[in-house]
This record gives sequence, C-alpha cells and structure tokens, in this order.
Amino acid sequence: MVHDSVRAIRWENDQLVLLDQRLLPSEYTEITYQTVNDVADAIRDMVVRGAPAIGITAAFGIVIAARQRYQDNPESWKQSIETDLEYLAASRPTAVNLFWAIDHMRACFANIDSDPVASLLAEAKKIHDEDIAANKAMGDFGASLIQPGSAVLTHCNAGALATGGYGTALGVIRSAYGQDKLQQVYADETRPWLQGARLTAWELLQDQIPVTLIAEGAASWLMKQGKVQWIIVGSDRIAANGDVANKIGTYQLAVSARHHGVRFMVAAPTSTVDMDMSNGDLIPIESRDSNELLQCGGQAMAAPGASAWNPVFDVTPAELVDAIVTERGIVERPNAEKMLAMMQNA
Amino acid sequence: MVHDSVRAIRWENDQLVLLDQRLLPSEYTEITYQTVNDVADAIRDMVVRGAPAIGITAAFGIVIAARQRYQDNPESWKQSIETDLEYLAASRPTAVNLFWAIDHMRACFANIDSDPVASLLAEAKKIHDEDIAANKAMGDFGASLIQPGSAVLTHCNAGALATGGYGTALGVIRSAYGQDKLQQVYADETRPWLQGARLTAWELLQDQIPVTLIAEGAASWLMKQGKVQWIIVGSDRIAANGDVANKIGTYQLAVSARHHGVRFMVAAPTSTVDMDMSNGDLIPIESRDSNELLQCGGQAMAAPGASAWNPVFDVTPAELVDAIVTERGIVERPNAEKMLAMMQNA
Repeated sequence: MVHDSVRAIRWENDQLVLLDQRLLPSEYTEITYQTVNDVADAIRDMVVRGAPAIGITAAFGIVIAARQRYQDNPESWKQSIETDLEYLAASRPTAVNLFWAIDHMRACFANIDSDPVASLLAEAKKIHDEDIAANKAMGDFGASLIQPGSAVLTHCNAGALATGGYGTALGVIRSAYGQDKLQQVYADETRPWLQGARLTAWELLQDQIPVTLIAEGAASWLMKQGKVQWIIVGSDRIAANGDVANKIGTYQLAVSARHHGVRFMVAAPTSTVDMDMSNGDLIPIESRDSNELLQCGGQAMAAPGASAWNPVFDVTPAELVDAIVTERGIVERPNAEKMLAMMQNA
Repeated sequence: MVHDSVRAIRWENDQLVLLDQRLLPSEYTEITYQTVNDVADAIRDMVVRGAPAIGITAAFGIVIAARQRYQDNPESWKQSIETDLEYLAASRPTAVNLFWAIDHMRACFANIDSDPVASLLAEAKKIHDEDIAANKAMGDFGASLIQPGSAVLTHCNAGALATGGYGTALGVIRSAYGQDKLQQVYADETRPWLQGARLTAWELLQDQIPVTLIAEGAASWLMKQGKVQWIIVGSDRIAANGDVANKIGTYQLAVSARHHGVRFMVAAPTSTVDMDMSNGDLIPIESRDSNELLQCGGQAMAAPGASAWNPVFDVTPAELVDAIVTERGIVERPNAEKMLAMMQNA
C-alpha cells in the first residue's frame, strides 16, 4: 500500500480525520473526530504528534468546538468555548505551536458575532496550507546549506507526519535528496516512542528515500568515523535567544556534533518560535509515563520494580546550533538579536 | 523468586550450566551444555554475554572439549582440540577475555600428557573464582573515588551477569552502595539489546539497590541538570594506551561527560587489558544483525525496507577516561606508560 502523499491530518465531510501514528508502520488507520475533547485526547495520547501537526490539529479542533458551542447557544458561545480552549491547551505542554494556534484562532473569532464556523474553518485550512508552504520554503533554505555528497542524521520524526505535510527536518532532507545532494540518510530510532524507526523510516521509504536506522547510542560513533556532515532536527519550541526544545536526545546530538565538528541544523516554522521565552530554561519540559520506557511495543522489558525517568524533550542551547532555518530564511549561529531580526522580517 | 546471589555461570555435575540472559527478566531459565560447540554457540547467541563471563564460559567450554577429545583419542587430543579452540574463538570478536581464556587454558594443557580434565577444570574454576575476587577488589578501589551523596549512571550490564559474579561497574556500584555513598543509580536502557533495562535493573533489584532507567538519549540531559557525578562502565577490551572498547553508546557518554564535567570510570579486570593492541583503533568492533535494531522484543518496529547500522561496541579514547580501575588498583588519566606500570605490578 503506497501513500505517495503522506498526510497526518485531513478535513473531510466537515470532520477532522487523523492518521493514528501510534499504530504505524504496522497498521495504517485513520480516526474521525467529532468533539473537541476527543481531539485534545488525541493530541495527549499521541494519535497525532509533532509540534506543527499539533498546532494544525488544535486549529481544526477549535472549528469543531465553535460549531458545537454556537449551535448550543449562539449568544454565549465565546464564553463557553474557553473551556474547550483550556482543555486543548492542557493536552501537551512543550510544543508552542499548540498555544500559538489557540491564540491565533481566538483572535480570529474575537470580532465574529454571527456563525463563526465558515471563517474559522477557512482559517484552520489556511494554517494548514501555510504550514506546508513554509516547510517547502524551509526545505530549499536548508538544502542550500548542504554540500553535494553529504550524509545526514536526523532524530525523531520531523516529517510530513509531524506537520501539515512535507516536513521540517525531513523537508530539508526531501529537498536536498531531490537535488541529489545526499548520499545517505541516517535516522536515530528515538526511544522510547521509536518515532525514528516507526515513522521517519516509513515516511522516507514512501518517497523512495533510503534510510539507515541507528540506536541513539551509536550516533557519536557514527560522527567519530566521519560518516555524517549534518545533524538535522525539528523543534517543539525555540526561545527568543535561539535555544531549541526538541525530542529528548537532541541536546546530546548537539553536544557530540560540536565535539566532532559536525554541523547542527534546526528546521522549524516561525510558529515554533516563542518570543515570550527569553531563553530555553523557561520552556516547560513534558515528562511522560514511565511505562513508555519500561515497555517496548506493549511488552514489559524492564525488571518489575524498576523506575524510569522519562522527560520527552530537552533544550539545546543556541551556542551549539549552527543554523536555524524557518520559512523566512536561515539564521546562522543564532542569538537573540538575529532571532528578533528574523521574526520582524515578516 | 529471589536470587540473592546472581550467577550467570555454574559448573554442576560435570556440566556447564548457563543462565539464559536472552530471556531475563521475564523468565529465569538455565541451560546445560555438554559440547564445546554448543558452548561457543551460546556465546555467539548471547545466552551468556559480558567480557569476563565470556572468558570464564570459554574456559569451562575447553574443559568439555578436552574431556571429549581425550576420550576420543588420548594420543592426538592436543591436535584435535585446536579445532574446538578455533570455533570458540570465532564466536565473538571484541571481548578480549575470550582470547585470553583460550590462550591461558592452552598454556595450561601444553605440558599435560595424561588425562587433562582434572587440571583444566581446576584452572577454569580458578579463573572463575579469581574473577569474582578481582571484582570485589575493583569494587573497593572504585568506590574509594566516589564522594558520599553521589549519583551515578551506568551503561549496558557490567554486573554479576557479565562476570563470574559481583560485577565490574556494578561491583563498584555495589561497593559504593554498601558504603552508603550512593543516593541514586541511573541505568541506560541500552538499545538494541536492552541490557540495562533487562539485566542491570533486574540484577540491582535482586540486591535491593534502587535503579532508575533512562533512554540513551536522556543521558546528556541528565548530566546537564547536574544529576550525576560519575559515569561507571565496564569494558570488553582495553588497549595498551588506555583506549576502552565497550558497548555501543559508551563513547557518547564519555564525550558528554567531559562536556559536563562529569567523571568517567571504567572498571575491568586485567584480563580485559590487551597489551598487544597499542591503541583502540586496532580493536575489532563486532557488528550484529540489523534485526536486533529493527525489532524490539521480537516484534518488528521499523518500516519494512529500512536498513540499520548495528555496531555493538565503540572505542572511547583514553583522554576521555578519568579512571581505569582493575583488581590491581586505580589508573587515573590513563596512558600507555601508566597502563604498562599497572600491568607489570602483578
């Protein structure tokens, strides 16, 4: 079964349809959502994941919420929908795109007093479309940094599955591969959720891009042997000074990349940049259930009685980042001044 | 079921009994071996693993081989046993203790012309007993480096299961814990084989030592937050200059430990030191089947068609090692000169 255009999120017959990423690659199953609470639960339970995809999903969730709230009471829906926005906001703490989408949609309905559904749906679709366009722009900017004959390592899944489509880090990889610049793509398997093994490998193979998986522990050994020139990752939140929150393990790659003279690129849309966070120490880091680590594929792996520490994001300081790539261009050796200049260059 | 004295290797009723470490922690199963080829296969298939345990197992395997070869032909057994020694030597390439044990046993029977079994069995038992004694000595030396109130991170399983008993890295942890010096023990889960989750957690919990598992990708984030003072690992082979081959992922920990000012200790008996290898670049690094990485717990995880790079060891250069601890003492900031002095101090 070939999915030549992987889409994690679709709006179809006035309903939100999500690809269940918990089941990939063994099952390709879509779930249809009719209530905003179910959408929030889908985000929390990782039916959909990846910062931009979470933002887009939340935007469509707000369309569903507004439809219901307006139908229930056309006078008070703007008050009552706040409960839904709070429930959505509580689903996951680290990806700022979630809060960005909620704020964006709230601003959009602030001046609407009639039936808001058509306007909000148009806005959600625009967010979705603009995300794909941003990824394609980022892909070209990022690819311009890569020398022909390079090999790259990516972490987690920052691909079509994590976004509206095309991907951030995998967008750069798609563009660079399309330009015949890549000899080899390595992917960290990315414990505990195995996004690399389950999602990135699947997604790249849909596009006939060959991919070689490695254990996280092998990344530095790969770098030591000169086998990769770039680490390319996405982000869940970028602070105003260029510090980057991303999947646990990203920081370790950045430390090791610097040690080995390997370059480190972050690809993310400007909706991932949180100018209200002056630095990465302020970014809330989600910890998830220990069982994600104590089990693998639903099977108990660890000895009964063992505990686990399972933070699912970490923060890479800006000084370890060689380039942040957004839809607006490339920020090399990011700092607060350069990030502000990029964000003001709308 | 409590195993208050974990033993991976036993000699019982003139047979070799191995604990099947592939099945831990969900099943505690022992297998009895009657032929040297089966013993070699057990090493290759990782029924038994860990450099010192592999060496001890090989020594008992040679007892079994000598018994059979001498019985087959008391005149030519010393020639015919060479086939067995070659088959044993081909089981796994990186752990030098295997070759050390083969050379040691060959030297032992070189001057025996009568039935060699009693002498060889006594020698194998001596190797086993001396390994345990070495681990206890190492435990005390290593613990002397650790300040009270410390937390440590270990990788893979360098415990009783990987040795004759007590363990190398876990021997240091056992001794330090017994001296009330440890507030916390963290263990990398250690993909792909999950020695940390399956074996280290199980083994420490047998001794009521609390253990917290982390994903490999979380190790640097743990260090960044000042949560550990020492990384403590075992080794499969130490070169004459102090370079250390150990489970894939060790090198990455050493790079990161240096970046964070965390200290890095290697605990291994002198049988792990290979004075014939001037440096770590010469150490053969085993790669194992891709399926170890593409699967988890016997279930396919990665997308069909993905490939994997699965080196199971790496080499940490001596300059990233703060201390090598053997049964003879502590070599701080190891180099060729200090290693030679330690090895000559028999």
